[in-house]
Amino acid sequence: MRRHTFVMTLGRGSPFSLGLTGFVSTLACPLTEKVSYKLRTRFKASHMAGEKEIWEKIGEGFVQEYYHQFDNTNRMGLGYLYSGQACLTWEGTIFQGREAIAGKLASLPFKRIQHIITEKDFQPTIDSCVLIMVFGQLQADEEQPMAFHQVFMLKSQNGSWACTNDVFRLGIHNIPV
Amino acid sequence: MRRHTFVMTLGRGSPFSLGLTGFVSTLACPLTEKVSYKLRTRFKASHMAGEKEIWEKIGEGFVQEYYHQFDNTNRMGLGYLYSGQACLTWEGTIFQGREAIAGKLASLPFKRIQHIITEKDFQPTIDSCVLIMVFGQLQADEEQPMAFHQVFMLKSQNGSWACTNDVFRLGIHNIPV
Repeated sequence: MRRHTFVMTLGRGSPFSLGLTGFVSTLACPLTEKVSYKLRTRFKASHMAGEKEIWEKIGEGFVQEYYHQFDNTNRMGLGYLYSGQACLTWEGTIFQGREAIAGKLASLPFKRIQHIITEKDFQPTIDSCVLIMVFGQLQADEEQPMAFHQVFMLKSQNGSWACTNDVFRLGIHNIPV
Repeated sequence: MRRHTFVMTLGRGSPFSLGLTGFVSTLACPLTEKVSYKLRTRFKASHMAGEKEIWEKIGEGFVQEYYHQFDNTNRMGLGYLYSGQACLTWEGTIFQGREAIAGKLASLPFKRIQHIITEKDFQPTIDSCVLIMVFGQLQADEEQPMAFHQVFMLKSQNGSWACTNDVFRLGIHNIPV
């Protein structure tokens, strides 16, 4: 049952904050193809029963940790949530690699920010990754709240989970219908 | 150069409309791990030069075809863009498998719909997939335009590209900041 409880116990003193690469680095059993397939076949029944699947727990844990660090730290530590060659597209501009990503996030021009999550969706992928789509609002300094949406892909590498892909956009339309 | 041109030639008479499973089914050279890695190392230079990478062309082709079929057909044909065990999360409800997905999309309760795309972002993944995030507005029948965002994951299977993951949400906040 360990696989089903580890994310639930992640707190502010989790491996994230210890400077380890990736998150859930104490995970004893990485998600394997076999596990993923089994999960997929159980998809509907477990969902209907209200039981959270492992990818939902992993995704929930990542989202909680990511936005907590984003809103409450200097953001350089966010780099440890990414894999070494991770890719971030931030408002259309591409950053590749953990250092480039952390540098971008740390350099964003505001002093205070708060994310409020409206919706979070999680899916497993055929390659045993976890796909996350987040929709919410953010408020930076004294600015008006703005909608945003963000996608993450998580992959288990060397026994820990890390973000390999991240796409962020503010919800601003440039074309009136 | 064939890999770099095939998406550009996709049109209304593309393999999509012939009832084949997946899209770009005439693709001679599926994206491999090796190709993907090479693409990733070229990431910044090619992007700065304004040259579109193969995953951008694949993503563009899919987005063009998906929303064209969505807005101009009875939508049952959309099922052929998905892999057999694909997963769709539509406003928080999960549909798994091509038939379930096509059935859901075909049963949506409007007669006319128009999607207007504001932003499209594309990324390659470490497993040689293409990750797509779309942000835009849709207008159904005489309703007010609504924001939406949607994520797709494409994977090359048996020589053709298919959508394995799809998450759709309307841009409606339920929590005022």
